[in-house]
Amino acid sequence: MAGSLTITRIEAFDVRFPTARAHDGSDAMNPDPDYSAAYLILHTGDPALEGHGFAFTIGEGTDICVAAIRTLGMHLEGLVLEDAFADMGAFSRSLIGISHLRWLGPEKGVIHLATAAVLNAVWDLFGKVRGLPVWRLVAGMTPEELVGLVDFRYLTDALTPDQALDILRAAEPGKAERIAQLEASGYPAYTTSAGWLGYDDDKVRRLCQEALADGFTHFKLKVGRSLEDDLRRTRIAREVIGPDRQLMVDANQVWSVPEAIEWMHGLAEVRPMWIEEPTSPDDILGHAAIARAITPIKVATGEHVHNRVMFKQLFQANAVSYAQIDACRLASVNEVLAVQLLAARFGVPVCPHAGGVGLCELVVHLAAIDFVCVSGTMDGRVVEWVDHLHEQFLEPARVSRARYVMPRVPGYTQLLPESMDRYRYPDGTFWIEDAAR
Amino acid sequence: MAGSLTITRIEAFDVRFPTARAHDGSDAMNPDPDYSAAYLILHTGDPALEGHGFAFTIGEGTDICVAAIRTLGMHLEGLVLEDAFADMGAFSRSLIGISHLRWLGPEKGVIHLATAAVLNAVWDLFGKVRGLPVWRLVAGMTPEELVGLVDFRYLTDALTPDQALDILRAAEPGKAERIAQLEASGYPAYTTSAGWLGYDDDKVRRLCQEALADGFTHFKLKVGRSLEDDLRRTRIAREVIGPDRQLMVDANQVWSVPEAIEWMHGLAEVRPMWIEEPTSPDDILGHAAIARAITPIKVATGEHVHNRVMFKQLFQANAVSYAQIDACRLASVNEVLAVQLLAARFGVPVCPHAGGVGLCELVVHLAAIDFVCVSGTMDGRVVEWVDHLHEQFLEPARVSRARYVMPRVPGYTQLLPESMDRYRYPDGTFWIEDAAR
Repeated sequence: MAGSLTITRIEAFDVRFPTARAHDGSDAMNPDPDYSAAYLILHTGDPALEGHGFAFTIGEGTDICVAAIRTLGMHLEGLVLEDAFADMGAFSRSLIGISHLRWLGPEKGVIHLATAAVLNAVWDLFGKVRGLPVWRLVAGMTPEELVGLVDFRYLTDALTPDQALDILRAAEPGKAERIAQLEASGYPAYTTSAGWLGYDDDKVRRLCQEALADGFTHFKLKVGRSLEDDLRRTRIAREVIGPDRQLMVDANQVWSVPEAIEWMHGLAEVRPMWIEEPTSPDDILGHAAIARAITPIKVATGEHVHNRVMFKQLFQANAVSYAQIDACRLASVNEVLAVQLLAARFGVPVCPHAGGVGLCELVVHLAAIDFVCVSGTMDGRVVEWVDHLHEQFLEPARVSRARYVMPRVPGYTQLLPESMDRYRYPDGTFWIEDAAR
Repeated sequence: MAGSLTITRIEAFDVRFPTARAHDGSDAMNPDPDYSAAYLILHTGDPALEGHGFAFTIGEGTDICVAAIRTLGMHLEGLVLEDAFADMGAFSRSLIGISHLRWLGPEKGVIHLATAAVLNAVWDLFGKVRGLPVWRLVAGMTPEELVGLVDFRYLTDALTPDQALDILRAAEPGKAERIAQLEASGYPAYTTSAGWLGYDDDKVRRLCQEALADGFTHFKLKVGRSLEDDLRRTRIAREVIGPDRQLMVDANQVWSVPEAIEWMHGLAEVRPMWIEEPTSPDDILGHAAIARAITPIKVATGEHVHNRVMFKQLFQANAVSYAQIDACRLASVNEVLAVQLLAARFGVPVCPHAGGVGLCELVVHLAAIDFVCVSGTMDGRVVEWVDHLHEQFLEPARVSRARYVMPRVPGYTQLLPESMDRYRYPDGTFWIEDAAR
């Protein structure tokens, strides 16, 4: 019966949470994000089986992504699920290769966000049909099956399928133990919740103290609006966390290359472990120049790095020391795996971007896949944790003593029906009531 | 009166021409483009004054760009025209800086195409209000005014405002003569019309002969589906055009870096002047590697290079010898000027991409701006010419004896009302009749 299940209908809609009102998520580039999702549900012949997926957005324009999801979705109607599952690599390439839609990128911007959302929903279905959380589904694949997921187009000058296979085979020993280790003690997290740019000094201090008490060892603050403010806030954080724990800073792309270098020289005294997004995410050579100039501070980027070709070059140019893949900016598990393999080849740890709405729920799967199948290690790796909006999900992401708890529910992640009803934009109950106020 | 004119309403729609049926525009990546435009009209307080702009697309998905144009357009309602014209640089930055929409790029993909379309329409208005074609409007600006158009964010490691000013001031002498030269004898064009991948050998031969008779000296063929076919077709072209005219080839991104190098070694005997889009437009380091490996064949790219930050790096890495800016992929005159200035600083000629629908109509303005204001020369420069769909425009682009004729009508360019009525998708008369067939 499962063998003949098809996608019968695609439902796509805009979900927005009013996070801007509390300055949650505020940074130097994004002062007022309303964390949002361009969300879709793939309906199947089985009313109990739905695939959920989304791309993360920050308010206005979510509807543009929804329009792109609907257009891509038309190509999925009638799809036999087991045909897609039998070769998820080919299926992913077929979506990315629709030439009229590729023109709108290629593999970047709205069309790539929509591709990510659609593929996330197909992976959700794949996990549900197999009765496994996505990370366990992928962890159970052979090296050959994993290589089959990856689109090597434009990668072979840095990573061939054979080289990828070598990496994956080298990680075979100990897989079962690593799965058990993840299930027993989770994956290391760091906190960003203490350091949004809109928070005042007292709030930063209090939140750092709370995070410290919760067991965190890595703390990230937003910077980039004023060097004086940044010094004051990062000194507070350094004072609270002490000399031995790690402080990271994040500029969210506000600087040019020379500004980034100068500003980071100004912040060197608080000894940041990394500066995240010091400049345009497109500026590979700029990141490399910054990295050379600010040693021993490292450079991290990735949440806006739009595809595997860009990550390939960031690695080739020694431009980043940490690769912050995003679960909805890259084209789902397939392209994330491509970047994890590239990162392994270049010896760069992958530290996923999270936060927003639903990103924590997704990246815990991806970090686990890296640990079990690719890098085989947690050394130098830490996944972003932001404690917002988890209650909106069927299986909320959870961090305990600064470690992500592994998901156990089959599939990838999905919003609660009541959250969708409340925050659908503009016709959810919250927004209707809000408009009436 | 003009001083108080505002934008009162934005109308945006999808226009598609059924070009796929004749294989016009077919290449190795895009077998069946229906040349399309995500089109907008800015209405003003004056019923006789409309601003027209568009982004070029190839069929399905045009509606996604239209949705993005509508969203951006909401930010323009009530705009006082003279406020925008007084500082087009600030106005352009304000559109690009809308943080929720920036998240969908940044500065790439659908949202950047929409930004280009909207800014193209504002430039059209600017020209119309001043009674000048856009190229003449810009040619009349001072170096300081021109520098004010450019967004230097992320550029200053390669080009500062002062350095840009030096370039523009150096081009001041002879401006009037160059304008007169353009009006008297136009700007050199090359032809792509002979070499679409879907055309058979006889058609390639015949079209090359016709283009030769029309005075063309530069001929471009599509390649990349089969080396054997490419050799046969390029040999035909080389035979027809003789040893001294220039042959260019265009792979439309189908190769990985090693494939591009191998294939171009295979095509070296026909002595191509450039290979265009040998690989992913995102692969700066890949283009640089190809350029090093295939000397003396040069590398050209740009129609899918999504912003000034990418062009900056292509120049920094010596990755391209020709910069093929696109009038609708970059954010209109402002960002094109940024790239022209970067190109001048690095000594790279700009050879605009055209074809599609309306691109020839736009780039003739941009090539003229480069000649009059920036580079001051036509040496080594040639603008793409494709003879499709010009009859759809109020002032059709025109090439005479292989030279573009300068536009004389105020504004940028616009479709004829009857063309919009006929090819609006899906409700234009052509598409309604087509559906009934």
